[in-house]
Amino acid sequence: MPVSVYADRTMLVTDLIRKKRDGGELARPEIEFLVDGYTHDRIPDYQMSAWLMAVVLRGMSRAELAALTESMLNSGKVMDFSSLPAPKVDKHSTGGVGDKTSLVLAPLVAAAGVYVPMISGRGLGHTGGTLDKLESIPGFNVNLSTSEFRRVLGECGTSMIGQTPEIAPADKKLYALRDVTGTVESPYLICASIMSKKLAEGIDGLVLDVKTGSGAFMKSEEDAVFLAELMVETGQRLGKKISALITDMSQPLGHAVGNALEVAECLEILDGKGPQDLRELCLVLAAWMLRLGQRVKTVEEGRALAEQLIASGAAKEKFGQLIKLHGGNEKVIDDASILPRAKQHVDLASADSGYVSAIMCEQIGIAGVLLGGGRAKKEDSVDPSVGIIVHKKLGDRVNAGDPLCTVHYNSTERLEQALPLILKSYTIAEVPPVLPSQIHRVIGDV
Amino acid sequence: MPVSVYADRTMLVTDLIRKKRDGGELARPEIEFLVDGYTHDRIPDYQMSAWLMAVVLRGMSRAELAALTESMLNSGKVMDFSSLPAPKVDKHSTGGVGDKTSLVLAPLVAAAGVYVPMISGRGLGHTGGTLDKLESIPGFNVNLSTSEFRRVLGECGTSMIGQTPEIAPADKKLYALRDVTGTVESPYLICASIMSKKLAEGIDGLVLDVKTGSGAFMKSEEDAVFLAELMVETGQRLGKKISALITDMSQPLGHAVGNALEVAECLEILDGKGPQDLRELCLVLAAWMLRLGQRVKTVEEGRALAEQLIASGAAKEKFGQLIKLHGGNEKVIDDASILPRAKQHVDLASADSGYVSAIMCEQIGIAGVLLGGGRAKKEDSVDPSVGIIVHKKLGDRVNAGDPLCTVHYNSTERLEQALPLILKSYTIAEVPPVLPSQIHRVIGDV
Repeated sequence: MPVSVYADRTMLVTDLIRKKRDGGELARPEIEFLVDGYTHDRIPDYQMSAWLMAVVLRGMSRAELAALTESMLNSGKVMDFSSLPAPKVDKHSTGGVGDKTSLVLAPLVAAAGVYVPMISGRGLGHTGGTLDKLESIPGFNVNLSTSEFRRVLGECGTSMIGQTPEIAPADKKLYALRDVTGTVESPYLICASIMSKKLAEGIDGLVLDVKTGSGAFMKSEEDAVFLAELMVETGQRLGKKISALITDMSQPLGHAVGNALEVAECLEILDGKGPQDLRELCLVLAAWMLRLGQRVKTVEEGRALAEQLIASGAAKEKFGQLIKLHGGNEKVIDDASILPRAKQHVDLASADSGYVSAIMCEQIGIAGVLLGGGRAKKEDSVDPSVGIIVHKKLGDRVNAGDPLCTVHYNSTERLEQALPLILKSYTIAEVPPVLPSQIHRVIGDV
Repeated sequence: MPVSVYADRTMLVTDLIRKKRDGGELARPEIEFLVDGYTHDRIPDYQMSAWLMAVVLRGMSRAELAALTESMLNSGKVMDFSSLPAPKVDKHSTGGVGDKTSLVLAPLVAAAGVYVPMISGRGLGHTGGTLDKLESIPGFNVNLSTSEFRRVLGECGTSMIGQTPEIAPADKKLYALRDVTGTVESPYLICASIMSKKLAEGIDGLVLDVKTGSGAFMKSEEDAVFLAELMVETGQRLGKKISALITDMSQPLGHAVGNALEVAECLEILDGKGPQDLRELCLVLAAWMLRLGQRVKTVEEGRALAEQLIASGAAKEKFGQLIKLHGGNEKVIDDASILPRAKQHVDLASADSGYVSAIMCEQIGIAGVLLGGGRAKKEDSVDPSVGIIVHKKLGDRVNAGDPLCTVHYNSTERLEQALPLILKSYTIAEVPPVLPSQIHRVIGDV
């Protein structure tokens, strides 16, 4: 039973909960009081979770959301890279299956002279995480201190690390609470969580890749657009250049799903090869990052520069430098066989002939987790070598017996769990589907 | 930060929270799981408060509400008085200012041979509590054990005690949580709280006195009717006879507000005297209790019986017996001067001439608390002697200089806090107001 040691604070917090419950708008100091009090254990979990549920069901005004985001941002350290001689930008994706663009974008944009201080996460649910992918490169250390991060960023133009305890501790505590109180699924709370962490990177601009479709957290385009608009407006209210791209996640991005497999695919992209959809998305996102980073005047110019940096080998070389500075084996950029490989693989053949008309993308992601490539629980370790190579994608013609995917695995038991999910995720139809466009639309600084 | 020791339970609870958050209907076993888990500390406060907030904002189906009420009821001891040779009934009021009917009804209905096992509460907010009123009778002990309660009930036909720890512990724990998480104001949660406690009394029938108006928790009649309907249906689903009366609380009930002053007024009613509105409500409520208790066939018959038991002195005699069995000084029934009296009193005169057209009833209640007659915090002690005698009620003609009220007080400082509230609560107009009827309507077993 809650004991109110601080009778006055308890009453005040209860009033703020009731205000939100009844659809009212909290003033900035009221939100700061809640976030600061919760972060410093003056407000108990049970009051915060009630308030969070009220936010989920009542929503927030744009002013409230900006105040919440800024309070969470200011709960920890906000990096200051203003002494670096060029703009700092980053990209954030809401997460998808086979979504590995960060590994291409960080070196590509840094090769153009725009700084990319990138703090990333681990796999969550059915989606992979940048840190897990990087760690499949032998020796790569994502756990740099803030000062090491600054040093690598200054030397190389980019550094990629995991979240440090100094960054937005309010978000860490709130997220843990949301996770167990059914209050994750709110665009307002998702926005504040993402933006508070990203803006702590001391960036000038941020490109948001908001996924929509069967493999995304936001299944409907309407929800994706709403979240994107919230994030763009919130970032702008906090004085940053923000653009959001609504991009397709109705099938895995590229062919590879799985940590080392995805790194290998990124190396192909940096070699000017690789799957067309992944290449296209990387070039568009890089173009926007270069524009927000004021390296180019137009997105078209940015895209041309990105293509040129790939063609010249400068982007790949930058990736090698990044890997080396993080303690990794930079030879990987010319020899992907250095990456861990699963012991066995098996091809999954199509039972029918026709066209791939749907791929239940989330199922493919879950299959990757079941193979050992992701985590069912936070504490689980990840097998970097396993995964799925998706050969047939939307619209592809298949004949019965053609391999749809190749599954790379180390455990027959895990394979048996994953197989049915993968097989059931494909729909083969007699007529080809209407193909989704890669970029649905752009919101924000256009 | 919440640590999930029970990963599976945590996930299951989170799913139930999300289900309610998204407007779904929980099955009976799911609600039992939540209530039982929370009562036994297996489900933490922060999950329960999120679920409660989802209930506040999403509501509940009638089946969910019945399951919640029954789970809370079964969290503790449910008394069994089936061996007693007559039906058992009780009355519950949602609380008002000057609402002292319980002290009249328990002896009156018991005098007719229907058992009244009454478990009551203390003052809450601006409203008084039956226990506080009883305790103003010198020696009266409301803290009987369950077995003493049973003995007094068997001997006298009624007993009046406070809640024991064995009764609905789920409600006790949930109410404490609701109090600090902005989740009190939900008709569903109010209904479950009231009904789980009342049905633990082992009663066959329950008359609900749902107040509406400026002195009630439910200010609008619409809200009062909705709550009444919920309680009637929930009680009926649990196999009880339930009637609800929507009654007026747009002014204090009777003249007296304050513990000992209200006991004295009840003695007047039991003497066949006292204010007309209080007398009327007592007779109607008694009539319904007698009907649900199968002592009479119609409400009219019940009312006639109640009038007769007052006229004969049987009801007052029963009150004396009740007081004696609770250790109180039963001489009070013939000598109200035994009750504690405030040291000083002051008349408040009207500044204007005209008709009393409105009384801000809640303000009068708060003034009573400020005088020391109620509690600002749970731990506060109560001064039984202080209070307000409301001379002029709605529609009364007043001339400038006429006393509106007499305030009984022990502390000038407290008087000074209370006075402005009382003075401001009166509106004097040139034309008489339309008087509200005492009983707005009856819902349920009619």
